[in-house]
Amino acid sequence: MLKVGLLGAGRIGLVHAVNIAGNARSSLAAVADVNADAAQKLASNYGAAVRSSRDILDDPAIDVVLIATSTDTHSELIESATAAGKAVLCEKPVDLSLERARACLAKASATRSPVMIGFNRRFDPNFASVRKAAEQGEIGKPELLSVTSFDPSPPPVAYIKVSGGLFRDMMIHDFDMSNFLMGARPVTVRAVGSSIVDPEIGRAGDVDTAVVTMTFEDGRIAVIKNSRRAVYGYDQRVELLGSEGLLQAQNMLENTVVKSTAAGVMSAKPTYFFLERYMTAYAAEWEAFVSAVLEGRPMPVTLEDGIAALAMAEAATSSARTGEAVEVAY
Amino acid sequence: MLKVGLLGAGRIGLVHAVNIAGNARSSLAAVADVNADAAQKLASNYGAAVRSSRDILDDPAIDVVLIATSTDTHSELIESATAAGKAVLCEKPVDLSLERARACLAKASATRSPVMIGFNRRFDPNFASVRKAAEQGEIGKPELLSVTSFDPSPPPVAYIKVSGGLFRDMMIHDFDMSNFLMGARPVTVRAVGSSIVDPEIGRAGDVDTAVVTMTFEDGRIAVIKNSRRAVYGYDQRVELLGSEGLLQAQNMLENTVVKSTAAGVMSAKPTYFFLERYMTAYAAEWEAFVSAVLEGRPMPVTLEDGIAALAMAEAATSSARTGEAVEVAY
Amino acid sequence: MLKVGLLGAGRIGLVHAVNIAGNARSSLAAVADVNADAAQKLASNYGAAVRSSRDILDDPAIDVVLIATSTDTHSELIESATAAGKAVLCEKPVDLSLERARACLAKASATRSPVMIGFNRRFDPNFASVRKAAEQGEIGKPELLSVTSFDPSPPPVAYIKVSGGLFRDMMIHDFDMSNFLMGARPVTVRAVGSSIVDPEIGRAGDVDTAVVTMTFEDGRIAVIKNSRRAVYGYDQRVELLGSEGLLQAQNMLENTVVKSTAAGVMSAKPTYFFLERYMTAYAAEWEAFVSAVLEGRPMPVTLEDGIAALAMAEAATSSARTGEAVEVAY
Amino acid sequence: MLKVGLLGAGRIGLVHAVNIAGNARSSLAAVADVNADAAQKLASNYGAAVRSSRDILDDPAIDVVLIATSTDTHSELIESATAAGKAVLCEKPVDLSLERARACLAKASATRSPVMIGFNRRFDPNFASVRKAAEQGEIGKPELLSVTSFDPSPPPVAYIKVSGGLFRDMMIHDFDMSNFLMGARPVTVRAVGSSIVDPEIGRAGDVDTAVVTMTFEDGRIAVIKNSRRAVYGYDQRVELLGSEGLLQAQNMLENTVVKSTAAGVMSAKPTYFFLERYMTAYAAEWEAFVSAVLEGRPMPVTLEDGIAALAMAEAATSSARTGEAVEVAY
Repeated sequence: MLKVGLLGAGRIGLVHAVNIAGNARSSLAAVADVNADAAQKLASNYGAAVRSSRDILDDPAIDVVLIATSTDTHSELIESATAAGKAVLCEKPVDLSLERARACLAKASATRSPVMIGFNRRFDPNFASVRKAAEQGEIGKPELLSVTSFDPSPPPVAYIKVSGGLFRDMMIHDFDMSNFLMGARPVTVRAVGSSIVDPEIGRAGDVDTAVVTMTFEDGRIAVIKNSRRAVYGYDQRVELLGSEGLLQAQNMLENTVVKSTAAGVMSAKPTYFFLERYMTAYAAEWEAFVSAVLEGRPMPVTLEDGIAALAMAEAATSSARTGEAVEVAY
Repeated sequence: MLKVGLLGAGRIGLVHAVNIAGNARSSLAAVADVNADAAQKLASNYGAAVRSSRDILDDPAIDVVLIATSTDTHSELIESATAAGKAVLCEKPVDLSLERARACLAKASATRSPVMIGFNRRFDPNFASVRKAAEQGEIGKPELLSVTSFDPSPPPVAYIKVSGGLFRDMMIHDFDMSNFLMGARPVTVRAVGSSIVDPEIGRAGDVDTAVVTMTFEDGRIAVIKNSRRAVYGYDQRVELLGSEGLLQAQNMLENTVVKSTAAGVMSAKPTYFFLERYMTAYAAEWEAFVSAVLEGRPMPVTLEDGIAALAMAEAATSSARTGEAVEVAY
Repeated sequence: MLKVGLLGAGRIGLVHAVNIAGNARSSLAAVADVNADAAQKLASNYGAAVRSSRDILDDPAIDVVLIATSTDTHSELIESATAAGKAVLCEKPVDLSLERARACLAKASATRSPVMIGFNRRFDPNFASVRKAAEQGEIGKPELLSVTSFDPSPPPVAYIKVSGGLFRDMMIHDFDMSNFLMGARPVTVRAVGSSIVDPEIGRAGDVDTAVVTMTFEDGRIAVIKNSRRAVYGYDQRVELLGSEGLLQAQNMLENTVVKSTAAGVMSAKPTYFFLERYMTAYAAEWEAFVSAVLEGRPMPVTLEDGIAALAMAEAATSSARTGEAVEVAY
Repeated sequence: MLKVGLLGAGRIGLVHAVNIAGNARSSLAAVADVNADAAQKLASNYGAAVRSSRDILDDPAIDVVLIATSTDTHSELIESATAAGKAVLCEKPVDLSLERARACLAKASATRSPVMIGFNRRFDPNFASVRKAAEQGEIGKPELLSVTSFDPSPPPVAYIKVSGGLFRDMMIHDFDMSNFLMGARPVTVRAVGSSIVDPEIGRAGDVDTAVVTMTFEDGRIAVIKNSRRAVYGYDQRVELLGSEGLLQAQNMLENTVVKSTAAGVMSAKPTYFFLERYMTAYAAEWEAFVSAVLEGRPMPVTLEDGIAALAMAEAATSSARTGEAVEVAY
């Protein structure tokens, strides 16, 4: 039974708390958050203690630390937690600065403590099924990947200003999805982006609609489309064309009801946001982490994976600004 | 090249004229209709002559007669046409009277002229594909058939009064579909019906909504659902459960466009009526008839098939009235 | 916080235990089962005590009793539990004997303790959504209901012998679904059934494939199709035709992945059995029960509902035997 | 009644012949082809005369010329036909050389004879429905277009060598589709391509897999994906994201049958190639041309449209070679 210290009691911390408590091989021992009320509320729901991050890291009874704090604290917490000998699951992104993330990797690696980055979408049953079918050669050799990833509505502009921009904050999931499904990292990235959803986002220096094309050493191609607004819900699809077929993961819908009237045939919308859509993915992610820790197997998503996605985001950000193709420096 | 005489220049006659002219092995030679204007208009479109039915039947240059007149003339025209040595394609139903239809069968059989009954749905690519897959054992042994057949809106009550009723006029197609897909004729029929779409239909002595359950000698079961009103279009589906799977033929839609908005996900309605839905079926039906005639093969749908469907309709009509199960007398 | 005593630690008891523990307003206090090991294992997972049924019923600290024992004990346990002042959620069916169930109703009603029958499918989000849309008039007046309900594979013949037969054991869910969606109980029932899936089932006196047609006072019609075997998974669909449209609840699939190859287009099968398919339904059912108990509102599914479904099953069993229509005696 | 001279009796000439003959307002008067047998066969099927191109152009009784010859003859034939006062429908592309096409435009424009370019996909009911919905504001302001266009299998390398390359030969349809659906022409084009389907194609100097990203003056974005091989059939889809929703045109399938077995759920493949998929589009294209000619309205697709698509293809070809963004010179 893994004893878990949860750093961060916000929205995503809550999701993790449910899974930690619901997993037969882990229990929530302690919670830390700068917001004492949030920490207290979450802790009492699960019979956990409210403690400081420092306390948690120093406690030898804590086996595992789950980092669900704000992005600017990730690198430092990964370093302290691994230094303290904890196994770590850290939310994405590792850091907004690629350089800082690399320094973190160097320190963390030296400790040999296992670190997993929370790219939850890899554990979505639909995407995982695409990956498995591709690996098993069900569509021959994968050649052309297409990722569609639209949020239902843009976050506040205040958030966007500190988010690192669409490529680091939102598309980073899709960069990792591409690495996951293609089984390789792209050589070159070409990005275009604009702020047509909300000009305020443009004035804040970011884009809200973007297309990134990536080419691989062996000639394969991947394309990612992002928009901050899809009024019909959370649109999360992939398509992988191979030499012997096509794999598509379609959206999950709110229900299976179809209504046919004189006005047309109406079906349910995609589940509205990531909590609904990825509920099972978060649980599977936690289970994968717990298994790997307890059984001494490699982390299913590594710190290097987190840094690769960050390097791609950096390249895309640069390409969208200059209009030129950028080689990714991993 | 078969020279065709078309008896009846109404709506269904027009459909056949297009296919006769469009088929490389048939041409429309003559048209007859009590409505001289209709006959003239159709004939001039296809370079055919307007003649009387009698003239057409007496003309040795005419190879084939297509009977698309009103139901009460079918039996007599089949008899005269086969007596005149023509190959005959006659629209369903053979007759409203089962006894009269049997007499027609006796006379027509004696002539050895081939007669096909126009159960066009057997030639719909979707239903034909279900039949083929079932025959090839793709779902093991078929056990339970379900036919859904809803018209978009009821015909005028004046028509209903002379139609022979829902079971003879509308469900007769579905009785034949059951025979086609099950490869056997049912032993017993149980019918329930009511007039909930329009009480006027009830006052005219008919039902507008009905469910018929049929059992087969070997224990298999088929169920047919009919309604005279499906405001969203022409709903024509079958489902066949077998020991190793399920086959479903779904509706054909007006187009493949899907619109997702905040209000929901909207797709196209089924094609609105039988002319759109069964356009390809009518062409394939004609081609099947032409092939069989020219190549001397058995008719794809026989007069016996038409009489079997009529016997089932008779049994269902009786069952719906008495509330009791009726054994079908073929 | 409701303290719950769970009677029965079998497969369905486990499902309820998860929901009892996962609901913020209930906790699992005690478990009873004739199989001591099963009771112990379940209890220890949730920190509950293993006790006898009698002990649980006698304990004033227990607010609620959930009856998940074998069917032959339901009536008696409902009577004892309500006599002991407990709120009761009892799995379906109430009893295999309609007479016994009615006696139970009489006794339980006298106590004024609330009793809910576990027709879990009413809480499936898909079926619930059909009901809601129908109630709100989105398809006008509902006229013709069709319920398709196929199990993936038949239970052991030994089970079938004590199950009360397909109509009482399996179709009872669909009878309740019809009552739920039509908002009314049928007057007359016509059933046909046969044992084509497995002749052993026939020798045991039961059927494995059945179609039941039901007519309502106002002329509406409902039809239920059951098969004990659908090799592709748990097939659970409804269709409700109304004067202004059609509502369909389709199957839930294992995932949303579509694979297109030269061999065809392949998508996922329906979820395999009731535990997967109705997982959310069981949770919603428990929440509805807890809410109703704590807020003093009427039970969402009553003992009378359970008896109505049983009366319909009885009528169908009789109709399938005699071949005649049977009026339901509620 | 328009009298039509058909130049070219190859595969696409045959498609047009059917529609010319089938349209109530046009008839096929004459056919020309360097392959005398092909011309004779086609002509005899439709009662047309076999003549030389020159003869056809010189005949004042011919109202309309349909150019379905090889691409290298298009410009010259457009020039001669318009000079002869004929209305012209010419297959795409106008020419492989943008400069030559512009010269052709100059000459043809001077004659004031109407010229339509055969971008048949605009007349596909699915794409036409997307355009109509977008124009009517059903998804608010269109922002991000995605075109998926995969052929079932690559043409012979010998053909590819003279085709002008994937961007001019295959993607030219998608460039026009983008112009059609976005209602505007892009400013900048970025292309990546590789030959992963068949290295022979690469050795012939062409690509077989490509992604093109286009940006518009107002910040909107369009992306086109092409592959020469989709083993499951002709994959032709578009998606248009707007401020208030998403429009998708999905593939047309061979039939509507779904087969569910223990192995999974199988449905029909997309129609295999452009003749099946675009059969109705070609008929609608011809009807649109005939209407516009007879009613003196502007051509639904102009020579300028053909040149715009060609300019985009030129820009994409250049971008794929240099790796840089290219501004389109219309």
